[in-house]
Amino acid sequence: MKILVLHGPNLNMLGSRQPEIYGTTTLAQINERLKQRAAELECELVTYQSNYEGGLIDTIQQEGVTCDGLLINPGGFTHYSIALRDAVAGLAKPAIEVHLSNIYAREPFRHTSVISPVCRGQVCGLGWRGYLLALEALVGLLREEEQLS
Amino acid sequence: MKILVLHGPNLNMLGSRQPEIYGTTTLAQINERLKQRAAELECELVTYQSNYEGGLIDTIQQEGVTCDGLLINPGGFTHYSIALRDAVAGLAKPAIEVHLSNIYAREPFRHTSVISPVCRGQVCGLGWRGYLLALEALVGLLREEEQLS
Amino acid sequence: MKILVLHGPNLNMLGSRQPEIYGTTTLAQINERLKQRAAELECELVTYQSNYEGGLIDTIQQEGVTCDGLLINPGGFTHYSIALRDAVAGLAKPAIEVHLSNIYAREPFRHTSVISPVCRGQVCGLGWRGYLLALEALVGLLREEEQLS
Amino acid sequence: MKILVLHGPNLNMLGSRQPEIYGTTTLAQINERLKQRAAELECELVTYQSNYEGGLIDTIQQEGVTCDGLLINPGGFTHYSIALRDAVAGLAKPAIEVHLSNIYAREPFRHTSVISPVCRGQVCGLGWRGYLLALEALVGLLREEEQLS
Amino acid sequence: MKILVLHGPNLNMLGSRQPEIYGTTTLAQINERLKQRAAELECELVTYQSNYEGGLIDTIQQEGVTCDGLLINPGGFTHYSIALRDAVAGLAKPAIEVHLSNIYAREPFRHTSVISPVCRGQVCGLGWRGYLLALEALVGLLREEEQLS
Amino acid sequence: MKILVLHGPNLNMLGSRQPEIYGTTTLAQINERLKQRAAELECELVTYQSNYEGGLIDTIQQEGVTCDGLLINPGGFTHYSIALRDAVAGLAKPAIEVHLSNIYAREPFRHTSVISPVCRGQVCGLGWRGYLLALEALVGLLREEEQLS
Amino acid sequence: MKILVLHGPNLNMLGSRQPEIYGTTTLAQINERLKQRAAELECELVTYQSNYEGGLIDTIQQEGVTCDGLLINPGGFTHYSIALRDAVAGLAKPAIEVHLSNIYAREPFRHTSVISPVCRGQVCGLGWRGYLLALEALVGLLREEEQLS
Amino acid sequence: MKILVLHGPNLNMLGSRQPEIYGTTTLAQINERLKQRAAELECELVTYQSNYEGGLIDTIQQEGVTCDGLLINPGGFTHYSIALRDAVAGLAKPAIEVHLSNIYAREPFRHTSVISPVCRGQVCGLGWRGYLLALEALVGLLREEEQLS
Amino acid sequence: MKILVLHGPNLNMLGSRQPEIYGTTTLAQINERLKQRAAELECELVTYQSNYEGGLIDTIQQEGVTCDGLLINPGGFTHYSIALRDAVAGLAKPAIEVHLSNIYAREPFRHTSVISPVCRGQVCGLGWRGYLLALEALVGLLREEEQLS
Amino acid sequence: MKILVLHGPNLNMLGSRQPEIYGTTTLAQINERLKQRAAELECELVTYQSNYEGGLIDTIQQEGVTCDGLLINPGGFTHYSIALRDAVAGLAKPAIEVHLSNIYAREPFRHTSVISPVCRGQVCGLGWRGYLLALEALVGLLREEEQLS
Amino acid sequence: MKILVLHGPNLNMLGSRQPEIYGTTTLAQINERLKQRAAELECELVTYQSNYEGGLIDTIQQEGVTCDGLLINPGGFTHYSIALRDAVAGLAKPAIEVHLSNIYAREPFRHTSVISPVCRGQVCGLGWRGYLLALEALVGLLREEEQLS
Amino acid sequence: MKILVLHGPNLNMLGSRQPEIYGTTTLAQINERLKQRAAELECELVTYQSNYEGGLIDTIQQEGVTCDGLLINPGGFTHYSIALRDAVAGLAKPAIEVHLSNIYAREPFRHTSVISPVCRGQVCGLGWRGYLLALEALVGLLREEEQLS
Repeated sequence: MKILVLHGPNLNMLGSRQPEIYGTTTLAQINERLKQRAAELECELVTYQSNYEGGLIDTIQQEGVTCDGLLINPGGFTHYSIALRDAVAGLAKPAIEVHLSNIYAREPFRHTSVISPVCRGQVCGLGWRGYLLALEALVGLLREEEQLS
Repeated sequence: MKILVLHGPNLNMLGSRQPEIYGTTTLAQINERLKQRAAELECELVTYQSNYEGGLIDTIQQEGVTCDGLLINPGGFTHYSIALRDAVAGLAKPAIEVHLSNIYAREPFRHTSVISPVCRGQVCGLGWRGYLLALEALVGLLREEEQLS
Repeated sequence: MKILVLHGPNLNMLGSRQPEIYGTTTLAQINERLKQRAAELECELVTYQSNYEGGLIDTIQQEGVTCDGLLINPGGFTHYSIALRDAVAGLAKPAIEVHLSNIYAREPFRHTSVISPVCRGQVCGLGWRGYLLALEALVGLLREEEQLS
Repeated sequence: MKILVLHGPNLNMLGSRQPEIYGTTTLAQINERLKQRAAELECELVTYQSNYEGGLIDTIQQEGVTCDGLLINPGGFTHYSIALRDAVAGLAKPAIEVHLSNIYAREPFRHTSVISPVCRGQVCGLGWRGYLLALEALVGLLREEEQLS
Repeated sequence: MKILVLHGPNLNMLGSRQPEIYGTTTLAQINERLKQRAAELECELVTYQSNYEGGLIDTIQQEGVTCDGLLINPGGFTHYSIALRDAVAGLAKPAIEVHLSNIYAREPFRHTSVISPVCRGQVCGLGWRGYLLALEALVGLLREEEQLS
Repeated sequence: MKILVLHGPNLNMLGSRQPEIYGTTTLAQINERLKQRAAELECELVTYQSNYEGGLIDTIQQEGVTCDGLLINPGGFTHYSIALRDAVAGLAKPAIEVHLSNIYAREPFRHTSVISPVCRGQVCGLGWRGYLLALEALVGLLREEEQLS
Repeated sequence: MKILVLHGPNLNMLGSRQPEIYGTTTLAQINERLKQRAAELECELVTYQSNYEGGLIDTIQQEGVTCDGLLINPGGFTHYSIALRDAVAGLAKPAIEVHLSNIYAREPFRHTSVISPVCRGQVCGLGWRGYLLALEALVGLLREEEQLS
Repeated sequence: MKILVLHGPNLNMLGSRQPEIYGTTTLAQINERLKQRAAELECELVTYQSNYEGGLIDTIQQEGVTCDGLLINPGGFTHYSIALRDAVAGLAKPAIEVHLSNIYAREPFRHTSVISPVCRGQVCGLGWRGYLLALEALVGLLREEEQLS
Repeated sequence: MKILVLHGPNLNMLGSRQPEIYGTTTLAQINERLKQRAAELECELVTYQSNYEGGLIDTIQQEGVTCDGLLINPGGFTHYSIALRDAVAGLAKPAIEVHLSNIYAREPFRHTSVISPVCRGQVCGLGWRGYLLALEALVGLLREEEQLS
Repeated sequence: MKILVLHGPNLNMLGSRQPEIYGTTTLAQINERLKQRAAELECELVTYQSNYEGGLIDTIQQEGVTCDGLLINPGGFTHYSIALRDAVAGLAKPAIEVHLSNIYAREPFRHTSVISPVCRGQVCGLGWRGYLLALEALVGLLREEEQLS
Repeated sequence: MKILVLHGPNLNMLGSRQPEIYGTTTLAQINERLKQRAAELECELVTYQSNYEGGLIDTIQQEGVTCDGLLINPGGFTHYSIALRDAVAGLAKPAIEVHLSNIYAREPFRHTSVISPVCRGQVCGLGWRGYLLALEALVGLLREEEQLS
Repeated sequence: MKILVLHGPNLNMLGSRQPEIYGTTTLAQINERLKQRAAELECELVTYQSNYEGGLIDTIQQEGVTCDGLLINPGGFTHYSIALRDAVAGLAKPAIEVHLSNIYAREPFRHTSVISPVCRGQVCGLGWRGYLLALEALVGLLREEEQLS
């Protein structure tokens, strides 16, 4: 089982950028913890970050083919990138959306995600823990559906 | 550490009601799994379900006092019960909102939660797993903040 | 054949409350006339009124199981109670919504019913007669579908 | 007592057009059943269908004069024909609006009727039965008001 | 002269809940001060608090009959409970709405009251004093109208 | 100089229909007074009324060609008939819109005219006098522009 | 019979300001023509222009008392001055609103008049002629109502 | 194979009406070119224009039965005629909507078509060429689907 | 302690203007009663009325400096005068907004106050009594805060 | 004559991605058919696909200079990329927008194109045929305008 | 070259009023610095402040005639004074709007300026510096256009 | 002191693209003038243009670290790029937004900037001069804040 983990724009700055909102953990640390948990769950992980919408879409198209599911924090693209949504929908594999902060307790424009409707679920506001929990849930769902089919 | 788990209206019908949306797991089974995980996490659990807005508010006021955090699936109240929101805000303890289904992929009126802005975070669309993950996250957050203070 | 008849908040005051809008017939009289018509139609009736949203939901869950259809005047809950809507949808039996007054000729906030989309149909503005007609229609529909299956 | 029954655009196609929404009963059959019920209720019936807004307005103006009440299914005109609404309002006789399908469970643009506010009430979603029930209600209301005056 | 004083959800927590918004005076203290002022104004007081919408409606129906006016702080129900509004409107006696905080200086969803249009007036943002002033105004209005009739 | 005067749906009922809104003058009387004034102003008049949108459009296309200006009371079509608007715009001759009642003091849906933007001006709320004044204005404008060209 | 004629902000610049919209006639010329027509109609005229909202309100209160009707071109105040509207409504005498340009064919914010609902009618887009016609209509209405009373 | 071609209101004026928007080609010329292309494509054509909504609906119902597809330029009806939409939907045969001008570059009310959702596709802004291309596409689609079935 | 009392446009007409809405008490009488109550409360009063927005702002700036609090009925300015709001906010002293009528039970445009968010509270719908109660509340608040500081 | 053909994000996945919406033809096949048709029309074609908004803009700027017209399927960028719109507008050459699916029959957010207003026209819902027809129309328009200039 | 500098309501309080938003520089100091810079730029300055909308309009009409351009900080009038907008538009000379604070980072009602569309440009959020820069830009623009004409 | 100057999509085409909106000055000329002014102000400049959202974000993250402030013309990204906004906010250094044209006098979608709320201020509509003035203001602000800290 292989999972693609995508981080959207500005997430490469985690740890130093607005720590009162996003915490002090860096993206490298989050990826590291995700890999440890993936190892415990006996699955493989591909991680990718880009500030380019096109870079994320390319990766979904190219890496997505050989993956079983998608973990995505679309960053600022969450609220308008229909192109990214189309890429996730086109992949046609289970996806979970993750947000570090509680987007529903912030500015009104952050309350709407154009990505959510094409995902299985969403985890938000739980900081770096949210990634690990989403990974667990995704692997759980995939294994359950594997058994059913 | 003690956690209050609240289930809103119609969640007592889980397992039989619209299983294509909400799954086949019953509320008793979810509570059971939550208690097992709570035991592993070495914390105590109080669970309560009601179809009455007032019943949920009473419980938050009465049980909330001796609890350290709140796990809440407000069911249909999610979208309009400002009274319930005020109760959660008034409790002033970390709360996480859980939804079995992906409310953002359903009818437009389900896309807005009046409860979200007074919670730390939200988990939705991950079925019964979502409860376990939210419990883990809540306990993790509480322990972290305990250490910091 | 058994039909559950639900009356929402303030309908217990019928006859004395705002008769220029709701008429002078009391709820007891409406229930009486419904029972006579039910007898003519050879079906059984369970009637219930509550000012509590939770009371109506409990009754749908408990009495609904043994009934074949639902007649519901949600009163003021019509316009916001998604919890009640979820209960009606969860029952998964034919339901007809009744309003004594023409809600579309009153204040704008009364023009929207969150209950309508989960009912088979709606009868409004026909006073106490509307209940009898809705009962006839419901029994007619149920018998027709019984024959088809 | 004489009742004018108006059927709006496309209702002449009933029975063959989109039967999954509108049923398999034809307009001729509905008119036939209405006439039988009218005979039982000892009242006379004038029925008219047109795909022309102007045709319906002409008929309300010309036939309406000698009728005591109006039964109207405005079809697609329901949602925008203020000219038709003005004709119904100008008639100044009791009117009941009928829809075969539950317009509140269909596309959002069908949720608003410009005709409703000038009618006594509305019956929708009850198929051909809705016409018969509306006729009963209208005759009942007219006889009651006759007695009062 | 008898006045019914109703306190909506979460108001039983006054004094301890979010004192920066609602002040440190408890509900018991407010009721006490209201009773003293009522005594000075030579009128009787019935006070009631509930977290249940149905409980408030029941009380309006049952206690309202023998009262001359209503003082109501609908709490969170202010913004959506049309059922409560209908109960106040159905009582058909002078009512004044009270809010401790200035609801117009808080979140946008608190700027709309569905209760206001069926009250004579509103007092908001004046803390516990607001209750006393509203009581004075209500008694003044009632005595004035008594004289006129 | 020849002026086309168009009266929209239901205006043939003037005098008897809702006289509290539209007055007691009949359409024949208005046409008569218009013809007298036209004679005084030394211009010719063609008058036409229809309950059919298509009838009004046909007349604009056929009669409009030989007329110098248009006086139009679009009745209920005012608020939605873009087809009628296109016909007026396509005529490309000065037009004045007339309404008997003050449409801005009535229901909100009457506050918007889709015809206004393609007319030179509008006269509303001045009853039958409005027609005469609009005719004077139209003839005045046409004569002025004739002189300028 | 005495008529108060009010001109709002910037109308003192007529003739030189944006003549492509407002024409080349000056305010003095319009007042002159109005006075001639008033003389023909055997009525008296008071005219007043101000760029101050308060100046217009003062004049309505002071001059209005001895006048029989009001002719008002509120200029830019048309679209927001509820204070001016309240003054017109408070005068409680027949008023007609005049606009030189067709406000419905200009920017969207000019399509709404807060003054219209408290006037008898409106004349717009007919240039300086509109004033004369509105004066005629106002005098006609006042004389008619004088006779009726 | 037979195709019904419908032209809505005012399209009979093509060539002379607002040529800067709609071009100088007449409707007769467009029909002529369509018939030539139809001959090349070996299919038959029925063309019809009306300024009456009812006329277009009648034709869809009567001629549509023997046709294989529909080409429709609904003119001004595009933006509000739900009755026409219902007729197209009721026909249940492939339809393509054509507009001579680019409706998305004109007034905002022209940006919404109530007809589009019941058509296969839309061609707009390509002038008379748009009709020919839409005919080609329709015939192509019909032949493809004929082969598949 | 000195309180500035401001009355906005048209309030100088109280008593005679629309008494069914605003009552029969004159502004002079209200000021008189306010002064009596102020004497009882041992505080000084400055009262000012203007139909000019600028006059009210000037007074807030000039008189406000030596006052401890503000009582303001902004009249029609309530709903749009951001300039007045800025003056109240700039004063930075406790202010209470008063309305004679229940603005929430009148036209929709009266439901929004741009002044409310910069006041401590609001009293509306209580007629002339509302002024006295607001004065009491303001003095109470000021004395309380004086003691705390 | 040279035409630039641009394909936006995710269109490189055509044929395999959601074939129930977009069909089974690949982008290579569409480009091939376009080139054949271009050859027949005696014009040259430059085709380009990118998942990067910046890539499409660069290409419009660089290739556009030597092309005579633009054929563009903006994919998901259709609904928000004002940067892409600005590039098309800046090119100042005839452009036609193409969509494979009928965007007006899909999710509401797909009903608005920010690109349409700067194009000559739009072809949507006609599958791969739409590209060929748009090419024909574009070449036809360009040749016509060439002759006129 | 002469420039008119207008300061709207409450700007006379600069320096003392809400310095955390507007800074500590007084209006006199700003005018002083503007005059120095004007001297450097070899142009003349007329400055005027008023809390009266009418005062600002009067000044634009009277002083504007002899000035070459306008610098305006409309203060609170920015968001609603269409009368002021009309005065600026009627002046028909280059104008620049200045705001001390960043109005787009404040309350939503401050995000819209009715003055902007009739100005050449806007400078906001740059404090007192904004005035000097706007003056430079205005003089630069005027000199450039002088040379071109 | 070092300032980062960013130019968004299509700004590389300045001078040739739509000169009636954006002027005839090229980007190279603007950068040149900025560098001269920077030299006068004794500060260093880094300039960068990209049609890629990701390219601008990368540059803010990489170059921003060593700069003291940001000058940004986000071009078309102004209106939707929340990713770019997040990058500017994450930089946490003073930023000024520049637009060549007056975006408030253009299409409605250009009236909203998602970038403004995270900048200190905005300069728009002043052409190439706007850049120089914004640079002056930014350097002025930075020096002032340097002194204060």
